[in-house]
Formats: sequence, structure tokens, C-alpha cells
Amino acid sequence: MSNAIHTLTVDLADRSYPILIGAGLLGSRELFAAHVPGRDAVLISNTVVAALYAAPLKAALHGRRIIEVVLPDGEQHKTLASASRVFDVLIANRVARDAIVLALGGGVIGDLAGFVAACYQRGIGLVQIPTTLLAHVDSSVGGKTAVNHPGGKNMIGAFHQPLAVIADTDSLHTLPERELRAGLAEIIKYGLICDAEFFAWLEANIDALLARSPAALAHAIYRSCQIKAQIVGRDEREQGERALLNLGHTFGHAIECATGYVEWLHGEAVATGLLIATDMSHRMGALPSSALQRLRALLQRAGLPVDAPRIGAARALDYMRVDKKVQSGRVRLVLLQALGRAVVTGDYPDPTLQDTLTAHFG
Amino acid sequence: MSNAIHTLTVDLADRSYPILIGAGLLGSRELFAAHVPGRDAVLISNTVVAALYAAPLKAALHGRRIIEVVLPDGEQHKTLASASRVFDVLIANRVARDAIVLALGGGVIGDLAGFVAACYQRGIGLVQIPTTLLAHVDSSVGGKTAVNHPGGKNMIGAFHQPLAVIADTDSLHTLPERELRAGLAEIIKYGLICDAEFFAWLEANIDALLARSPAALAHAIYRSCQIKAQIVGRDEREQGERALLNLGHTFGHAIECATGYVEWLHGEAVATGLLIATDMSHRMGALPSSALQRLRALLQRAGLPVDAPRIGAARALDYMRVDKKVQSGRVRLVLLQALGRAVVTGDYPDPTLQDTLTAHFG
Repeated sequence: MSNAIHTLTVDLADRSYPILIGAGLLGSRELFAAHVPGRDAVLISNTVVAALYAAPLKAALHGRRIIEVVLPDGEQHKTLASASRVFDVLIANRVARDAIVLALGGGVIGDLAGFVAACYQRGIGLVQIPTTLLAHVDSSVGGKTAVNHPGGKNMIGAFHQPLAVIADTDSLHTLPERELRAGLAEIIKYGLICDAEFFAWLEANIDALLARSPAALAHAIYRSCQIKAQIVGRDEREQGERALLNLGHTFGHAIECATGYVEWLHGEAVATGLLIATDMSHRMGALPSSALQRLRALLQRAGLPVDAPRIGAARALDYMRVDKKVQSGRVRLVLLQALGRAVVTGDYPDPTLQDTLTAHFG
Repeated sequence: MSNAIHTLTVDLADRSYPILIGAGLLGSRELFAAHVPGRDAVLISNTVVAALYAAPLKAALHGRRIIEVVLPDGEQHKTLASASRVFDVLIANRVARDAIVLALGGGVIGDLAGFVAACYQRGIGLVQIPTTLLAHVDSSVGGKTAVNHPGGKNMIGAFHQPLAVIADTDSLHTLPERELRAGLAEIIKYGLICDAEFFAWLEANIDALLARSPAALAHAIYRSCQIKAQIVGRDEREQGERALLNLGHTFGHAIECATGYVEWLHGEAVATGLLIATDMSHRMGALPSSALQRLRALLQRAGLPVDAPRIGAARALDYMRVDKKVQSGRVRLVLLQALGRAVVTGDYPDPTLQDTLTAHFG
């Protein structure tokens, strides 16, 4: 392979693992020989991704027994029932503890396949092979796995770190426009929480990213994974700092819950959630209105939604309360102290939250 | 409380926890105040246990919100479907991440409630309150949680250490005779795998144990937990030594699978499995026939079954292959090198396994 592979490491002692970022990785037999142990490979993907990438990946897995599970596409299938169906296939095929699950797809497949790998026989090996921008920069890294419950997103899950993340940037060429934009929301999030310079770089390069410039995408993915890897390395189980990565997500979860996980893509809900969190931070006096305007402009240039559905503040708060960040009955929020500096806190004025929710949710 | 509490520690760095063994612990408000943090308690038990012990436990949990889930009794309910129903209750009650799951019951409840605690919101606190002898000496300690699949026992699960094990020996007074005997199988196992002296003590005290002598039971429970705590402390994730605790279990799993998890109690299947494993070790020349006879006599005095169902060797092997101990296609077995010294190995003559299975399963 002539193309460069950029490698990052998620540093978690005996569970450390590499993130390999590059073009054309998905079909590389050497790469898979080096990073995927075992003789049995459980390839989990969805109908859309399988049609595009299962063949080259299976060729790269030459010589192994491959058990393939192709699920329907969509967040509405990220359920315990889907996981149960995958367990049925694994058991019917006598898949043993030394098999490796390969999660080929976006965040839904990564989360679901990761949860299956976490629970099958109390945990087997997992390799994440993200094919969406969101999965490249966020969901494939850090070991969070889960399925949804009708009453809340990601309510049933596990921490289960992969053995490797193999991020083939070529897979982004086939990504639908809307999903590319959704992935940009998580990238913008990294700038907001801890890197004002990266935020400015995104403002300068948003058009190149939308045009899928390989160089621009490679940089955005590398920097995003670097930030995430550092935070996860310091706080794997989200005892503290890692919760910063949820900026915009508590508000976003309310949007996704209210719309049944189908109308809004996760990244779209996060985009609007980022704006709501930033607006609340502004209302608390932490940010000038210019920062809020810069974020709104960037999201709009990225083609991301900035208007929440008018579900009403009460219902939004209700959904937020089911979120995992509730502690001693109080919703903890990720808010900004500055553009590029986020903080997790339960210490905010309730009327400000109320005003913010009313402004955005009606 | 005037009675002595015997305390052991499972030493797992920041996840270390105490095993508290004593009479009358279940109703002790001070004990629960000291060992169960949080304001919400999720009490999971079954109909039989709840009728006996839910009231004193709820009194001991005074001042907290208690979410009670009472499941039907029996191993056939240790399924992903039962876990799913518990998740529904937790989400409907807005149970947050700082809640504690209390598993009140035997191995089935401990495994299932433990799995729920492991996966709910990616893991919440768990306290094991065993009420059967088997749970006192085995399943409540060590963090193994799971549900069964029709194709195999404990195929879906997680490692999730409790915050504490509170073993009230008074709860054994109400235990049905058959379940008391089943628990003795696991106690005998500890003698076989690593303590010939304890095995001899069991031979001398089996009648006292069957008569539920508090002193004899307390010693047997303490020594069993001590052995298990030491092994788990050295090998939490069963990379090596911990697999010794599965002596008799691979053969036993075949019995349980073949009989649909309902006819045989787990401990009964383990008892027969211990005899089969010891017989195979004897056939390999590791043990004199006198050792095999001693075990058979002890199991029979304990009222435990020593004859496997005649399902045929081929079917037994088939079930064993689904077991989690398969590695590179070969079933790894726990065998004895001596009475009091077990070893995990894939290195055994296939004809000896075949002969052993034929002798026991037909």
C-alpha cells in the first residue's frame, strides 16, 4: 500500500489499541492479518454498507471462517431485539470465545456490534471499521457500545474497547451528503469543547470538507480522533472529563427521542443540541453573542439544522431526565465557559434552562 | 447485632469489595447504610424469595426509593427476555445511573440481576444478597453475570463486580433440602480443585452440613468464598487460573442443556460433572480409583446425583462444544492431577474423552 497510514493510540494500559486512518485500508490483507487475530470473523454490517464494502473486506479476511450478519439499515434497528437475533446467529454457528467481531458501518452498527461483542460469552474481540464520518471521528473510538430502548437512547450497553479501529477514508466517498454533514457536527463539537484553533480551522475549511477534499477530511478526522483518544485515555468510564464529549447530546437526545430516532440523524440532533448548549452558556454570561453567531453560521454552512422541533419545553426536559447524565435527580449539563472550553455541571439556574428550552422547543 | 460478621475481601484494586458472612445481616439497617450507597435501590428477586425476605430487606433499606422487580422462579427465566422486562421497569421508573441493584436470591437472580446492572446505562452499582447455599459459596462472588440462550448456558453476559456481597446465613434455614444439597456440590468442588484438607473436612462434616449446623455451614461458606476470592483476585477475567473453578461444569452444562435447564439444578449437574471429570482424570492415570470412590461416596452421602442422563456421548460432546471453554476448535477441560489439584488443558487423548462420555452418557 503506497498511501500513508496515520496511526493514533488510545492509551488504556493492557487494553490500549491503535486507530489506523488512511485510504484503501479496508481491502488490505496485510493490515487485517496484523490487527485481527483469530480464525473466526463475525462480520456485522447493514444492507447498504454490505453491498458496498463486504466483498473487499471479506477478500482481506482471506483464509478465515466468516460468519456474516447483515442487518436492516437505520437507528430504529439498534435494539435489544436486533442484538438478540445476532446472538442467535453466533450460537447457531458455534462461534467461540476466540472469534473477532468486525463492526463494518456507521454508529448504529458500531454500537450494536460492539454491544454484541461485549456480551457474547461475556466479551469477545472487536474491531471497528467505520464507514461514516460520524463513526470515523466519534462512535468507533472509545469503547462505548449500546442499544436503544423506546424510553431512551443507549440505555442498555457496555464499555468494551476494540482491539483496533481501522478507518478507511475511501469509504467516505460513497457516504450520502446528509450523513457527511451529520458527521461534521461531531467534528465541530471537538473544536467547541477544547480547541478554539481547530474550530477556526473548521470555519476556514468547511467548504473543502463538504467537497470531500481528502486532505481536509484526513486532518479533521485525525484531529478529532486525537482529541477523543486523549480524553478516553484519561477517563475511560466517564467518571469525569469524558462527559465533555456529550456537549449538545443531552439536548440532542431529547430531539431524537421525541422523533422516534428516525426523522433526525444523530449528528443532526447533536448539531442543534450544540447550538442550544451554546445558547444556554451565552444566557449564563459565559460567552459573547458573537460566539453563538459563529457557531450558528458554521452549522448552517455545514448544512446542519439549527432549529429544534417544537415539542415544548416540558416534554424536552422530560426526555432529558431519562438521559444517563442524571445524578441525584438533577440533569447534569455540558456547557461552555468559552469557545474551546467546556465544563460538566449540575450548577446552573433552573430558570435559564427553562428559558433556553422554551426558546428552542417552544 | 451481636452475631459475628466474617469478612473477606475480593482484591481487585479500585474494584475490590467485601464479602460479609453472618447470621441476621439481611435486616441490618446499619449494614446497608454502610455498604449500599445511593438513594434508589432496585430490588430484584423471585416470587419465592420475595415472600420470605423482601420485607426485612426493604425495612433495612429504610429511607430510599425502592423499585421492586419480582420475577418468576426458575432457571428457565434466566433469559434475555427477562432482562429486557427488567430494563423496561427501570426505564419506566426513570432509574438513574447512581441507583444500586440488589440481587436478592440464588444464582439465577444473581446472574440475571447482575447482567441487568452491568448493562443498564452501561453499568450501575450492584450488591449481591445470596439466599441459596450455591449463591453463598459461588455465584454471588466474582462478578460473572449472564443469561442463558436456548443454545447454551450463560452465553450472553458480562463481568461486573458487585460493590459488596452480603451473605446472611440465616437465609439458608428456609432453603429446600434439594437446593441445600445442590450447593454442597460447589463446596465439594473447591476441595477437589485446590484443598485436599478441606475435602477431607467435608467428608468428616457432611452430615453436620446436611443437618444445617450453623458452625459447619459457616466454615464451609467461609472457606469456599476464601478460595474463590483468592482465585478471582488473581485472574478476574478468566485468562487462566479462574477456569479451574469450572471443574465439572463443562460436563454439567451438557446435562443442563440436554434437559432444558429445568430438570436438573445447576449444582446437581455440577455434582455429576465433577464425577465425570474425576473419572476422566482417573482414566488418564492421574488419580487412583480410591480418589474416584471417595468422591462418589461423598456426593452420594450429600444426596447428589452421580448418574448422567443417557443422552448419548455424541450429543453430550455436541453440547460441550457450545460451551465457552472452546479454544481454536478444541474443548478445553478442567481435569485433576490429584485430589486437591486441578488443571485446565486441551491436551488429553480424544479416545479417553470418548470412552468417558460413553461410560456416563451412553
